[in-house]
Amino acid sequence: MANQEEVFKKVISHAKEYGFVVQSSEIYDGLSAVYDYAQNGAELKKNIREYWWKAMVQLNQNIVGIDAAIFMHPTTWKASGHVDAFNDPLIDNKDSKKRYRADVLVEDHVAKIEAKIEKEVKKASKRFGDAFDREQFLNTNHRVLDYQAKADAILKRLGKSLEKEDLADVKALIEELGIVCPLSGSRNWTDVKQFNLMFGTKLGATADSAMDLYLRPETAQGIFVNFLNVQKSGRMKIPFGIAQVGKAFRNEIVARQFIFRMREFEQMEMQFFIAPGTQKEWYEKWKENRMKWHLSLGMGEENYRFHDHEKLAHYADAAADIEFRFPFGFKELEGIHSRTDFDLANHEKYSGKKLQYFDPEQNKSYVPYVVETSIGLDRMFLAVLSHAYQEETLENNTSRVVLKIPAVLAPVKAAILPLVKKDGLPEIAQKIVDELRWEFNIAYDEKDAVGRRYRRQDAVGTPLCITVDHDTLKDDTVTIRFRDSMEQKRVAISDLSAIISAEVDMKHWLHKMDTV
Amino acid sequence: MANQEEVFKKVISHAKEYGFVVQSSEIYDGLSAVYDYAQNGAELKKNIREYWWKAMVQLNQNIVGIDAAIFMHPTTWKASGHVDAFNDPLIDNKDSKKRYRADVLVEDHVAKIEAKIEKEVKKASKRFGDAFDREQFLNTNHRVLDYQAKADAILKRLGKSLEKEDLADVKALIEELGIVCPLSGSRNWTDVKQFNLMFGTKLGATADSAMDLYLRPETAQGIFVNFLNVQKSGRMKIPFGIAQVGKAFRNEIVARQFIFRMREFEQMEMQFFIAPGTQKEWYEKWKENRMKWHLSLGMGEENYRFHDHEKLAHYADAAADIEFRFPFGFKELEGIHSRTDFDLANHEKYSGKKLQYFDPEQNKSYVPYVVETSIGLDRMFLAVLSHAYQEETLENNTSRVVLKIPAVLAPVKAAILPLVKKDGLPEIAQKIVDELRWEFNIAYDEKDAVGRRYRRQDAVGTPLCITVDHDTLKDDTVTIRFRDSMEQKRVAISDLSAIISAEVDMKHWLHKMDTV
Repeated sequence: MANQEEVFKKVISHAKEYGFVVQSSEIYDGLSAVYDYAQNGAELKKNIREYWWKAMVQLNQNIVGIDAAIFMHPTTWKASGHVDAFNDPLIDNKDSKKRYRADVLVEDHVAKIEAKIEKEVKKASKRFGDAFDREQFLNTNHRVLDYQAKADAILKRLGKSLEKEDLADVKALIEELGIVCPLSGSRNWTDVKQFNLMFGTKLGATADSAMDLYLRPETAQGIFVNFLNVQKSGRMKIPFGIAQVGKAFRNEIVARQFIFRMREFEQMEMQFFIAPGTQKEWYEKWKENRMKWHLSLGMGEENYRFHDHEKLAHYADAAADIEFRFPFGFKELEGIHSRTDFDLANHEKYSGKKLQYFDPEQNKSYVPYVVETSIGLDRMFLAVLSHAYQEETLENNTSRVVLKIPAVLAPVKAAILPLVKKDGLPEIAQKIVDELRWEFNIAYDEKDAVGRRYRRQDAVGTPLCITVDHDTLKDDTVTIRFRDSMEQKRVAISDLSAIISAEVDMKHWLHKMDTV
Repeated sequence: MANQEEVFKKVISHAKEYGFVVQSSEIYDGLSAVYDYAQNGAELKKNIREYWWKAMVQLNQNIVGIDAAIFMHPTTWKASGHVDAFNDPLIDNKDSKKRYRADVLVEDHVAKIEAKIEKEVKKASKRFGDAFDREQFLNTNHRVLDYQAKADAILKRLGKSLEKEDLADVKALIEELGIVCPLSGSRNWTDVKQFNLMFGTKLGATADSAMDLYLRPETAQGIFVNFLNVQKSGRMKIPFGIAQVGKAFRNEIVARQFIFRMREFEQMEMQFFIAPGTQKEWYEKWKENRMKWHLSLGMGEENYRFHDHEKLAHYADAAADIEFRFPFGFKELEGIHSRTDFDLANHEKYSGKKLQYFDPEQNKSYVPYVVETSIGLDRMFLAVLSHAYQEETLENNTSRVVLKIPAVLAPVKAAILPLVKKDGLPEIAQKIVDELRWEFNIAYDEKDAVGRRYRRQDAVGTPLCITVDHDTLKDDTVTIRFRDSMEQKRVAISDLSAIISAEVDMKHWLHKMDTV
């Protein structure tokens, strides 16, 4: 665990040092929970976005993509339930004037109890040595069992109170547990209040009053309000899907874990419109399909798992997460939700317009049901980056840091390196760059020894390094070196384009979805 | 002129009917000056974005791309001058309570005078018939000369008052001209006031106070604040560029002409960092380079022109627009600006951090100068769409509406059409789709007669239609039909991928930049 935290810190600092992710407005000491993607991060993010779009839109005859605006008519968010129900329970400490998420305060308290359990485990493990059986210890040690019971009871009560919106009891719980403000140390708390997570702004400036707008907290609603436009103009027949990639915004009070939970983030969502009654079948199909997409990247089956929701959101009749093993544990990477007709029916109600589909097979009109797949682009970025980060000890006892990013997603596909800065080698290397860059994102580097240049390309995840040396002058061949295996091969310059394609082309990678 | 307005209306309604652009939140009666891109529009927009990125980032060894957040630290906008100077002069009518841009009220008044001139021209043209010489008439007719002098004087005074920020004189001008509110008909005006165009919002929810944020009104500043991060982590050497594509927001009071001026829009900007003193040279180079990019699309040299600015913004020492012939006349499509060290120097001042570059050739540090290229993605979209829209009368006296979108940008690259819905033709067509869609965005259509299907593909700008017929069963050939010429050719199925590539591949099109 501690080791994983250490790794996570290294990933974050590597991300900054090598031009992947930096804090927003860093020269002004940053903006909390907002990040910028620098040159390598921007390419990686772009490649992930494109890999998703190709798989979802281009490869599916019955899915089209749209690009709806961030600004939407405010009634949209009444209909979707966000104005009334998109809240976090907040509590202020009267002494420090600091505001907290009430549920997080309680959860942090529980985390401390769990830390105590871990301490007992450690102690016992030291004492018993090889004979220590963790499971058995957890199930039999009285002190541990007491801690566990206490933690469970607290979380159960918190869950119930939140579900019933009994905010007074959440406060009572905080008081009973004697939770203090981490800043002031005091127990002088206000009541718990709901706080809406949408960012507001004002449109226009008419003399009487401006219109209150929200920055969309999810991209899905841009798809729902356009459902009929797309269905009609695209002559779409159910079942069909509408996909979208775009920014969304949430005024998170507790935003942490780097780019895992940000206030400004990017979603890749697809709403699949189906006949009522077929949702179970499509929900299962999309769970399977989306898992295949993840596995096609080859980041290890053991790093993914499904988590089926027991407690469902108000709009869903089934929901599951695809969880990924982040450095801080298994966490949600993507959600698959059977949303019923909740959204379209509500937009019908609030807009007074019919949002129905005439089904020629059933010979009747209905409000379609929806199965949604929703993945955070930034989370996917973090999954790829943190999985890719590796420190390796090499044969000659040196070490390297390498980003083993799936080649299809790598920011730079190949680096062209003249062995020395003379004898016409840079000119030949430059000629190769000029040919290849029409097709691929190519780097050129002539500075320092080749070994150091390899290390630099390893650090940004470039799958191929191509070295031009004196033999090149004789036979038009170059050395190609593979990032992960560090193997080297001699190949003809004229074969380079095909070799790189075979490694990085999206179509080769997406084909893997058929076989996983 | 009237004809062009007619065409523009047709383009807008075509854009909606065929899934390119629809009003945002249309089911809620829309959100003014905000638009959504539907399925074909989203693909066209994506292709334009990609064509720009490939040309600017991938093809230029010394340009990298980033993806900075929309939210930035608020001091950014103090440093950039937007908090203090990004204003429009507004005036309210006290009777209608309606707010107007004061300068636009005056300009609309001048437009009416110019309409009178056109009326005189028309009358005279009718009277003199073939003998009518427009230029001569404009230069000699007394009534016309009076009108023209009046219009010129008004615009000159308006320009001076705005430059001196003499808002009282702008109001005086409105009163002297007797301008009435189009709604109430009254001359009961308030004073003219400056109104900031940035959208505001609030970040976080601490007990004491939230942080006032702005939605960025331009993407450029996201590049400036990251200049040093990118330069250092990317080991960039001056001259080098940083490019970015992203959303920006302006609370325009007068937003019109469809997607030409929106409140939420997308910019494609590149900041090129150079040594002070070299700005003239780079400014000229980028003017030329950007024009080449436009011309590579083959939309007609006669539809572009440079407009060099005489009046310069506070941050520029040279500026030019690339104007395009929109249906409503030549208007700015892209700007090339020599921004000096204005932005970086101000960020140094406001952040207290050094934003300097050590130049190994000059052996000294300096704040770089910047030449910027800035193009509106939505405007580029409108240029492509409105230029593409054509109504043609065909040989058999029928007509067609066709979008002659440059094939590289077309939303759908090819449509596969089985001649009839039997005899195994749909199955063969589907097999072709399944092969080609790994590489291209492909449509499949089996409904109605082939002629009607051609018309549908023409209407969305699909460059190639591929028909599977009974001969296909015998010899594995298909008919390929070209959108613009409507020529048809018989080709082997196995050649399709290469034929489509030759028409639509970005690298073929970008290669044209070398030759225009």
